[in-house]
Amino acid sequence: MIGLILAGGIGSRFWPLSRRRRPKQLLDLLGGGSLVAATARRIEPLCGAERTWVCTTEALAAAVAAELPGLDASRILGEPSGRNTAPAIGWAVRTMPEAARREVIAVMPSDHWVADEDAFREALSRGAAAVERGDHDVVTVGIAPAWPETGYGYLELEAPAEPLSVARGAPGGVEPVLRFTEKPDAETAARFKASGRHFWNAGIFLFRGTVLLDLYREHLPELAAGIERLAADDLGADRRREIYAGLESVSIDYGLMERLDSIGCVVADCGWNDIGSWGLLAEALPADGDGNRTVGDTFAVDARDNLLFADEGAVAVIGVEGLAVVRTGDSVLVVPRERAQDVREVVERLVARGRLDLL
Amino acid sequence: MIGLILAGGIGSRFWPLSRRRRPKQLLDLLGGGSLVAATARRIEPLCGAERTWVCTTEALAAAVAAELPGLDASRILGEPSGRNTAPAIGWAVRTMPEAARREVIAVMPSDHWVADEDAFREALSRGAAAVERGDHDVVTVGIAPAWPETGYGYLELEAPAEPLSVARGAPGGVEPVLRFTEKPDAETAARFKASGRHFWNAGIFLFRGTVLLDLYREHLPELAAGIERLAADDLGADRRREIYAGLESVSIDYGLMERLDSIGCVVADCGWNDIGSWGLLAEALPADGDGNRTVGDTFAVDARDNLLFADEGAVAVIGVEGLAVVRTGDSVLVVPRERAQDVREVVERLVARGRLDLL
Repeated sequence: MIGLILAGGIGSRFWPLSRRRRPKQLLDLLGGGSLVAATARRIEPLCGAERTWVCTTEALAAAVAAELPGLDASRILGEPSGRNTAPAIGWAVRTMPEAARREVIAVMPSDHWVADEDAFREALSRGAAAVERGDHDVVTVGIAPAWPETGYGYLELEAPAEPLSVARGAPGGVEPVLRFTEKPDAETAARFKASGRHFWNAGIFLFRGTVLLDLYREHLPELAAGIERLAADDLGADRRREIYAGLESVSIDYGLMERLDSIGCVVADCGWNDIGSWGLLAEALPADGDGNRTVGDTFAVDARDNLLFADEGAVAVIGVEGLAVVRTGDSVLVVPRERAQDVREVVERLVARGRLDLL
Repeated sequence: MIGLILAGGIGSRFWPLSRRRRPKQLLDLLGGGSLVAATARRIEPLCGAERTWVCTTEALAAAVAAELPGLDASRILGEPSGRNTAPAIGWAVRTMPEAARREVIAVMPSDHWVADEDAFREALSRGAAAVERGDHDVVTVGIAPAWPETGYGYLELEAPAEPLSVARGAPGGVEPVLRFTEKPDAETAARFKASGRHFWNAGIFLFRGTVLLDLYREHLPELAAGIERLAADDLGADRRREIYAGLESVSIDYGLMERLDSIGCVVADCGWNDIGSWGLLAEALPADGDGNRTVGDTFAVDARDNLLFADEGAVAVIGVEGLAVVRTGDSVLVVPRERAQDVREVVERLVARGRLDLL
């Protein structure tokens, strides 16, 4: 299996720790190194370092390469500009040698967390086998909803034949996806959570590279043509940059997956967490007796259920509950854990004030 | 009038800004310089620099002197050890030249805040006149309670003859103190607040130095004898340190004032604030439209009634209310404003863990 790790994100939801030049995938949020390094390690038993590719931005390529010393720099691709996931994946696949493009490729984000790595790899292997057999053009990874999240996309599967006795995610099962649903409203999300046949879309896709490029030609012909132009041998850097900037900016979910007929889903029960905010990071950390989850030098007096994060210096709290308190070199953020996604409002305000020093 | 500023406190309630080597009186909490410098400036029109004395600790003497460049170093006294206010005041008074000891001396803490400095000076002048006339051995300064505080001492005056028409604090009035009451319980504090005849003891005392030393001899004879021994010309540094360490450690309120018959009180309506905690500091800062009070580089999104304090770097809050968020070089504190005095528990915990680096 070929691994393709997408590492171009900016991750402003982890401000103040994440910055323009140090986005989320480069952060060591849970110990054990950066998230991108943890992602590469996670698939190493399946792909090996020599079959792992990374697609990031030109600006981040050197920093990403420094996190992945085992990877040859030629397989760390830097996009000339950010054009969303469909161009990035198509371009990265087209850049691989022809032999690699014929294999099964697993594409995945670089900034997620997986508690049970064996279960994760088992699910990927199961999905790859279904792609190899030709059961589906593309296989996605579905996660049973742990709560009625409105911020994720969902995969709708068929109703299980025996809903009360068949455990979804049992080895062997790759099921057809009936429908993709982007971020539902709260009522719909609650229904999805209860249905037993809606699963979070983890943003992981398995396919043969050659098949994917055929699907681009069918469903995204202009993008496919642009990607072919980028593959020309004698392209100068300026022309390459110009063509890339002209590619249609579209996600692979919206631009391709939602239009396909033959998509499978392998359900993974692997403790997946997209660590989409400080609040979700807390879920991935162990709690002490008072429900506080801490990183670094922290002190809690009569305080419960807080996330206390200090990458240097000390954080002390007294008599507070349910807060995320984050301290980095030059900045402090205090926000209720359940409102942690609103940190983007602070980032927007900093942008509006031209405070590049804090971004 | 002679001014004697007490600047020996350690002020752990302002952790993390206050530290062993940088206690509260050395902090610039409200702009315009350190509190000790503001205190000296406040009495300068009454005393002049050449009649202002400071009593601090040996360890802090150099830092205090640096804050008071207009004061001759010979009038900045460093206690060899901390023995509470009765020894400090007695020793400082005894150290003054005999002519100064015969004058009216105003003793005051170095770490309080006064909004209306003219009213403050007017009250001191009024008290000094009563001492000069011999009306009272000691005159204290009383503050009308703004809330039923349980952490202060109270001065009980006689019931006003015409309670509804006579404004206490009107020029001219120095009234006898019937009783000192240390930190009352909540019920008593509420009664005091409502009584119209109980006033916060601001810790400011006016007396003739010679009279004070007589009172020490009468009520604190051992302490008075120790102070006399310290006044010997040929005392070596080690002996001086030994004698000082052997003085009875007692506050001037408990050791002397509460035992006296002839104490007066001048009520000052001067916007006094002892800035006893981060919560009280907030009261002395202007509020923005959302009730937030800020010092330094701070950002508030959908947040109300917070104190945001950054002496370097930035502090951002989202969706929180009534918190004090304090960031200094190496530490962050988050505490509800109304629980700000509990910061001492964090300091105690740091002491217990031997974290001198944070103290």
